[in-house]
Amino acid sequence: MKIATLSDYLLQRIDRAAGQPLNRQLYQVVREAILAEVLPAGLQLPSSRDLARELGISRNTVINAYDHLASEGYIATRTGAGTFVTDTVPDQLSDADRTEPAVRQAGGHAGLSARGARLVQRAGASKTQWGAFMPGVPDITRFPVKVWSRLQNVHWQRGKPELLSYASGAGYLPLREAIADYLRVARSVNCHAGQVIITAGIHQSIDLAAKLLGESGDRAWVEDPCYWGTHSVLNSLDLAPVPVPVDSEGMTLPPEMLRTPPRFIFVTPSHQYPLGPVMSLARRRALLDYAAAHQVWIMEDDYDSEFRYTGRPLASLQGMDTFQRVVYLGSFSKTLFPGLRIGFMVVPEPVADAFATGVAELYRGGQIFTQAVLADFMAQGYFASHIRRMRQLYAQRRHLLQQAIDDAFGGKLATTGGDAGLHLTLLLPPGCDDQAVSRAAALEGVIARPLSGYYSDPQQGQRGLLLGYACVPDELIQPTFAQLARVINKYR
Amino acid sequence: MKIATLSDYLLQRIDRAAGQPLNRQLYQVVREAILAEVLPAGLQLPSSRDLARELGISRNTVINAYDHLASEGYIATRTGAGTFVTDTVPDQLSDADRTEPAVRQAGGHAGLSARGARLVQRAGASKTQWGAFMPGVPDITRFPVKVWSRLQNVHWQRGKPELLSYASGAGYLPLREAIADYLRVARSVNCHAGQVIITAGIHQSIDLAAKLLGESGDRAWVEDPCYWGTHSVLNSLDLAPVPVPVDSEGMTLPPEMLRTPPRFIFVTPSHQYPLGPVMSLARRRALLDYAAAHQVWIMEDDYDSEFRYTGRPLASLQGMDTFQRVVYLGSFSKTLFPGLRIGFMVVPEPVADAFATGVAELYRGGQIFTQAVLADFMAQGYFASHIRRMRQLYAQRRHLLQQAIDDAFGGKLATTGGDAGLHLTLLLPPGCDDQAVSRAAALEGVIARPLSGYYSDPQQGQRGLLLGYACVPDELIQPTFAQLARVINKYR
Repeated sequence: MKIATLSDYLLQRIDRAAGQPLNRQLYQVVREAILAEVLPAGLQLPSSRDLARELGISRNTVINAYDHLASEGYIATRTGAGTFVTDTVPDQLSDADRTEPAVRQAGGHAGLSARGARLVQRAGASKTQWGAFMPGVPDITRFPVKVWSRLQNVHWQRGKPELLSYASGAGYLPLREAIADYLRVARSVNCHAGQVIITAGIHQSIDLAAKLLGESGDRAWVEDPCYWGTHSVLNSLDLAPVPVPVDSEGMTLPPEMLRTPPRFIFVTPSHQYPLGPVMSLARRRALLDYAAAHQVWIMEDDYDSEFRYTGRPLASLQGMDTFQRVVYLGSFSKTLFPGLRIGFMVVPEPVADAFATGVAELYRGGQIFTQAVLADFMAQGYFASHIRRMRQLYAQRRHLLQQAIDDAFGGKLATTGGDAGLHLTLLLPPGCDDQAVSRAAALEGVIARPLSGYYSDPQQGQRGLLLGYACVPDELIQPTFAQLARVINKYR
Repeated sequence: MKIATLSDYLLQRIDRAAGQPLNRQLYQVVREAILAEVLPAGLQLPSSRDLARELGISRNTVINAYDHLASEGYIATRTGAGTFVTDTVPDQLSDADRTEPAVRQAGGHAGLSARGARLVQRAGASKTQWGAFMPGVPDITRFPVKVWSRLQNVHWQRGKPELLSYASGAGYLPLREAIADYLRVARSVNCHAGQVIITAGIHQSIDLAAKLLGESGDRAWVEDPCYWGTHSVLNSLDLAPVPVPVDSEGMTLPPEMLRTPPRFIFVTPSHQYPLGPVMSLARRRALLDYAAAHQVWIMEDDYDSEFRYTGRPLASLQGMDTFQRVVYLGSFSKTLFPGLRIGFMVVPEPVADAFATGVAELYRGGQIFTQAVLADFMAQGYFASHIRRMRQLYAQRRHLLQQAIDDAFGGKLATTGGDAGLHLTLLLPPGCDDQAVSRAAALEGVIARPLSGYYSDPQQGQRGLLLGYACVPDELIQPTFAQLARVINKYR
C-alpha cells in the first residue's frame, strides 16, 4: 500500500470536528484496519514524520497513536528497518477442525439456549410497574422519606467501611434480629436470628433454596394459578414446576399426586396468590405431615400478610411445623418499597449455616449499608407504625374499589381475594377473553393483568382481572375503574 | 382431661411477668397443645368463665384467646353443647404409603442436596471483607460520601415513585447510556446503551448468561487459577467448569482441548485473576476466531482495568470482536464500593432484548433509585475524577507494599500481577504451605489469601499469597507486612 493510499484511507475515517482527540481516532482507525486485515501482517507503515505530513497533523499525534498501537502489539518497530504490522493472526487454529456454526435458534432468539428462549418467551413480568391497577405495588409516595434519609445520613456520617464492603454470611446481624423479633410476634414464626438469611428478594430466596436443597430435574409443586416469578426461577434452574389445583382451602392435595413426592412444595397459605383463599388448618396439617413423611421442603411464600382487613391474621405455616421442613420467605417489597430489594428467609436450624455460607458465596451480596438503615428503621418503631398507617390507607382504597365495582356492575361480577394484600381479583364470565380486555385497557393507560395468565394453561384458567388498589390515589379509583368497566363491557 | 389438669398444664406454661399479653400466651399454649395432640380432637374445653376462674385471669382474656383459636379453626363451638377441639388431623394421608424419611446427607450437611453440599464445602468467600491485605476491596473511606448523599437527597426530594418500584427491563436508561459512553472511551468497548444490562454484580451477570445462553450440563472453560466466584456460580447451575492452564500470555489454548468446544470461555484478558498477566494480542485473536468458528460465548470479566499503573491500559477483548461472541462483564465494586452492588454487562446486539427481558424476569431487580443516583454521579464527572484520585492513591500503596516486601526479603521472593488492579501476588517457594501461612497470619489478624486455593487442584497450584493493598492506609502497609513476613519466615 502506498502512503498516499493509506493516508486517503485514514483521512476518510478521521474527523477533525469530532470531540475525540486525533491521536485516539488515528489509533482506532489503524487498529480496525489491522483487525480487518486491510493492513496485512508484515506491511511497513510510513514513518511518523511522513504520515503526519500526509495527513496534515502534528507529528506528536502520530507518535502517540503509534505508541499506543505498539503497546498493544498491533505494530512493532524493528531497529534500523521501520515500523511494521505484526503477525497477530492466530495459527494455532489453522489445523483445528472448523465446524460450521451450529444454528442455535429457538423461539426466534438466535443464540439463546433452549432454556433461555423458553424463559424469554414465557416472561411474566409487566413492562409497567406503577399506576392503576398494578397489583403487588404499595403506595410508595407515602414512604417516610425524611425519616429514612435521616437514618441513612447518620450512617454515611459514621462511615464504617464494613458497611460498604461485601457482605459475609447471612447479612447484617441487627437486621436479622429485628426481623426474627418481628416475625415471632406478628407471624408466629418460630425462629431466632441465626435462622434468618437476608436476600435481595423472594426470587433470590427461591434461587438459593433450589440450589442448596435441590438438583436440576427435581419436581416442585406450585399452586395453579400461581405467581409467575416462581415458575420462571424454577425453570431457569431446570427444576420442573408441577401445577396443583387450588380450591377455597388453598392448595389441594390430590391422592394420585401424593404417591410421587416432589422435592419442593411452594405455597402461599396466608393469602393464596392471586386468588386469595387462606389455606385451611386441616390442609396445613396434612401438608406438614406429608412433608415430614417424605422429606419434602415446603416453601411458604408469605408475601403480603401484613395487610389483612377482615378477620385476624392467620399464624404462619412455619409456626405450626414441628418437623423443620418449612422454609419461610418474606420481603420488604410490599411493606416498604420494591426498589429496596431486601428480602429474607427463615430456614430450619440444621441447614442455617449452609444457607449463610451459600448466600455469600453465590451472590456476593452487599448492601449492608441499606441493611443497617433498615435495622434502625425497625428498631426505632418506624416499620410497625408505617404498616399500621398503610393498612388503614389500603383498607380505604380497597373499599373504594369494591364500591366502584358495585357501581359499575351492581353485584353481577364477583370479586375474590380482597380480605388481605394489595389487590383483589375481579372474576369475569367464562366466555370473556381477559387477555383481550387487558390489552384493550392497556391502550387506554389502565393496567389490568389477566387472571388466566397466572394458570399453567391459560386456556383452562378462570377468567378475571387482578386489580391492585394500593398504589392508586383515592380520587382516581372510581374514575379509572369506570374507564376499565367500559372496556370490560365491550367484551362481556 | 379434667379442668384442674388442664389449668395446671396451662399455668406451667403461662408467664404473667413476660412481656407478651396473657391472651396471646394462652392462645399459643393451647394451640401447641392441640398440634402436639395433648388436647385431642373432640375434647370439650372448659367454658371461658370456668377456665378464667381456674387460671385466675380475666374472662375477657380467655374469650379473646378462644376467639383467636376458633378463627384459625383449632376449636369450634357447637351451639348448646360447648367448645371442642376440632378434628384437624389429616386423614387424606392415612392410606398414603408413608416411606421412611430418605436420608439425604452429603458432606455432613443433613438435608442439603448433593449440589448444595458441594457448594458449601468448596465455598471460597472470605469471612472478613475489610482490612490488610484483603484483595479486591477498594479504599471505601475515600468514597465521596458528601457528593453521593447530596445526589441521593435530590432524588428523595423529587420523589418519583417509578424509582422506588420494581425495575423493568435492562435498568435505568440514563445509567445505561453513561456506562456505554464510559466503556467506549475508556475500554474501547463497541456498544450502545441498548446492549448494556444493569445487574447486581458480576455473579448475577454470570448467572444470567448461563441461564439464557447455556443449559445444565454445558462445559465452561475457566482459567486455572481463577476467581472462586466463577466456579461457584457455574457449579450452582450444574454447568461444568473445565480448568485451562494460564501462562504469561493469559489463558492457553491447548490443541487437545480445542477439539471439543465448550459453550462458554471465561477469561480475564486485561489482568488475569489472580496472577496478573495480560492476554497477548495473538492469543486474543485466536480466541475470538475460535469462538466464532464454534459458536462459543466468550465471557470477558474486566473487573479492575481502571487501575493500571504501568504502561497503557489495553483495549477490551470485546472491542476487537467482529463476530458478536463476547459478553463483557464489569461492576462498580472496585471503582466505587462493593456494597453498591451494581454491575453491568454488554451483550451482543442479537441477544440484547432477550437479556433485558431475562434480567427483569429472573431477579425482579430494583434499585432504580440507586441507579439514578449513580447516573448523575457519572454524568456530573464525579466518577472519572474519583477513579483518577484512586489510581494515584493505589499506585502509592502498591509502591509501599513492594518496598515492604523488598525490605523483608531483599528480592528473594518474586511478586506478580502488580501492573494493575488492587492486589499483587507474592510468590512463595514450591515447598511452602501457603494455606498454613494464611491460617497463621489470620490468627495475628492479617488477611493473606493463599494462591494455591485459586487453582482447580490446590495441591498442584503455585504457592503464594494474594495481597490487597488498596484498602490499607499508607502507614499500616510496612508494619503489617513486616508482621506477615515473620509468619512467612516460619514456613519458608
